[in-house]
Amino acid sequence: MKNRKLLMIPGPIEFSPDVLRAMGMPTTSHVAANFIEVFGQALENLRKVFLAPGAQPFVVAGSGTLAMDMAAANLIEPGDHALVVNTGYFSDRFARILERYGAAVTHVHAREVGDAAPPEEVEAALQSVKPKLMTITHVDTSTGIAMNVKALAELGRRHNALVVVDGVCATAGEEMRQDEWGIDLALTASQKAIGVPPGLALLVAGPRAMEAFRKRKAPVGNYYADWTEWLPIMQAYEARKPSYFATPAVNLVWALNVSLKEILAEGMDARFARHRKLSGAFKAALTALGLKQVPKRPELYATTLSAIYYPQGVDKALLRHIDEAGIIVAGGLHPAIRDQYFRVGHMGAVGASDVIATISAIETALGRCGYKYEVGAGVAAAQRQLQ
Amino acid sequence: MKNRKLLMIPGPIEFSPDVLRAMGMPTTSHVAANFIEVFGQALENLRKVFLAPGAQPFVVAGSGTLAMDMAAANLIEPGDHALVVNTGYFSDRFARILERYGAAVTHVHAREVGDAAPPEEVEAALQSVKPKLMTITHVDTSTGIAMNVKALAELGRRHNALVVVDGVCATAGEEMRQDEWGIDLALTASQKAIGVPPGLALLVAGPRAMEAFRKRKAPVGNYYADWTEWLPIMQAYEARKPSYFATPAVNLVWALNVSLKEILAEGMDARFARHRKLSGAFKAALTALGLKQVPKRPELYATTLSAIYYPQGVDKALLRHIDEAGIIVAGGLHPAIRDQYFRVGHMGAVGASDVIATISAIETALGRCGYKYEVGAGVAAAQRQLQ
Repeated sequence: MKNRKLLMIPGPIEFSPDVLRAMGMPTTSHVAANFIEVFGQALENLRKVFLAPGAQPFVVAGSGTLAMDMAAANLIEPGDHALVVNTGYFSDRFARILERYGAAVTHVHAREVGDAAPPEEVEAALQSVKPKLMTITHVDTSTGIAMNVKALAELGRRHNALVVVDGVCATAGEEMRQDEWGIDLALTASQKAIGVPPGLALLVAGPRAMEAFRKRKAPVGNYYADWTEWLPIMQAYEARKPSYFATPAVNLVWALNVSLKEILAEGMDARFARHRKLSGAFKAALTALGLKQVPKRPELYATTLSAIYYPQGVDKALLRHIDEAGIIVAGGLHPAIRDQYFRVGHMGAVGASDVIATISAIETALGRCGYKYEVGAGVAAAQRQLQ
Repeated sequence: MKNRKLLMIPGPIEFSPDVLRAMGMPTTSHVAANFIEVFGQALENLRKVFLAPGAQPFVVAGSGTLAMDMAAANLIEPGDHALVVNTGYFSDRFARILERYGAAVTHVHAREVGDAAPPEEVEAALQSVKPKLMTITHVDTSTGIAMNVKALAELGRRHNALVVVDGVCATAGEEMRQDEWGIDLALTASQKAIGVPPGLALLVAGPRAMEAFRKRKAPVGNYYADWTEWLPIMQAYEARKPSYFATPAVNLVWALNVSLKEILAEGMDARFARHRKLSGAFKAALTALGLKQVPKRPELYATTLSAIYYPQGVDKALLRHIDEAGIIVAGGLHPAIRDQYFRVGHMGAVGASDVIATISAIETALGRCGYKYEVGAGVAAAQRQLQ
């Protein structure tokens, strides 16, 4: 027995052995030549993973929430209008953060949980509000819904809104082409599909976002998040020069560079395709087992995670049985349906074996809960997709 | 050859093997039972290391600068008066952060670089300004000066100022007894004497600080730093219950608990004494080699680091020679004297062998720079103190 459970939650995820080895390496100085080189490479590689050749990356010790905070603090000035394309828990959070820095926020909500905000309502709001900035939660971790970022970004750009994408549960798994799709700022956290233990906020800001930042008149309301301090640091590391604002999380940055290299070795197109395939297999299994997902329609399915309703007669006791079968999955998060569903992450370094093992554990757990199903039907449905 | 240099800068420092092993462990869920237990223990242990039995600890992904930012954002309301006992680079930074959240800041400076702010001027300022809050940089990493925190805190309390101690280069090395000395908020970063790779901001807030936070009328200006969000999370982990605001840096928190246990196994009194002894030995060696330190008088010497002027005829080329001898030390940081001195950290897990190796490397490097000294005089002076 390896005496260790497989971590299949929507982050932190399973990390590669080389990433974990980098985490445990003796720490060097944040201005040592070897670390400057690694940080410089990580910044260059981040730009490649975000498919944003002309953009400015920021890597800062913190969490995905800090990345959202940093986006709002640097781009919003008191009185600015912002539009939130609202898909759930994390869209609500982004709205609160924008308001903290003085934004007047308009929401476009989905008509019900499990659906996406209607694009025509987004366009109407863009026309009437004329927001400086629009946020899209690429994948809302609370619902497992992936938004059509490409189409929404095009709408936003057409109406001169800065397009900000919260890619926390998406980037490096879900297809996202920052430059080509006209995304002005994309952000994520290290512990999701980027494949590094939690502790880093990652942002990539395009030219229009940087211009909006440079033109601001009000000082940034948050000291730690202020790009005025961070921009010269990021530029210095990329120019392979020592500099100091706040000590970077050396081991995490080292691990980040290892993971980014692994991602780029796979290739972004291959990586997006692998996520689609694994997710498709996992979801085929759910359907074969008669389980219903939170997203209403297949075209809303995220490829990085699945949000699954408990079938009739089954409740969150299911999670304990899945845990006993050796797999950690996550409970519900969206307040409206919190106790009615559970979530499974399948992104980053996960492979077919992990997906099969997880479905098998879910089958076993369903059985323990008295749910009637054909043993092996889920696994077989996934196997067919994975062949 | 181990092909690895000894890291003798004022943070990040040398970390223990068990701490590094915890860093490289497969990551678990931030709400898994084993992680909840570890986080809960870390909070309890932090309180013990800060000698603050009744205080509220906060552990957040970020840096020491985030810890300063968090202190200011949660305790300052626009228009509040603050007093900064200013010893250099990091005191200046604290003042800028306080101002960011609306404080009117009064500084009491040392009369010259290398000296401490005169206590009678601190008291006069407390009387005339009546600040809500007073900050003390326990050890200013830029000068190697340790302030008499006990005496200053007593002054602050007498004048009803909240006493905030920036212990970034001090806590768990330099003697600090938060509760006994009447310190309302003490903060530090993981990568200093606490002995964990960089990436965590650590704060311990006493009852008066928490009361000031609860009584505030203005919302906290910074979302990520807001204790309104973090307090229930810290309370939940300590009550061994799952909760979520922003994903904690799982591996770093795990490593933190390992390091705090090591610190408590040594015992705080023994740890303070060891730091005094190692620092005394290092400084005796500097004197024996004819080197002058930045702090004017021995009673100002920090025990966690030394700031050393280059002797006549020697410049920062010395650092390269020390590096070639296998030891990484740090250059100057204080703007007024940046190119005239260098800095050596000796805190946390460092032992006598590290101190001796560092002095030997400095001797070798001084020789390469053409400085005249008696070979072995520094090492012998340290050995005498270490016996």
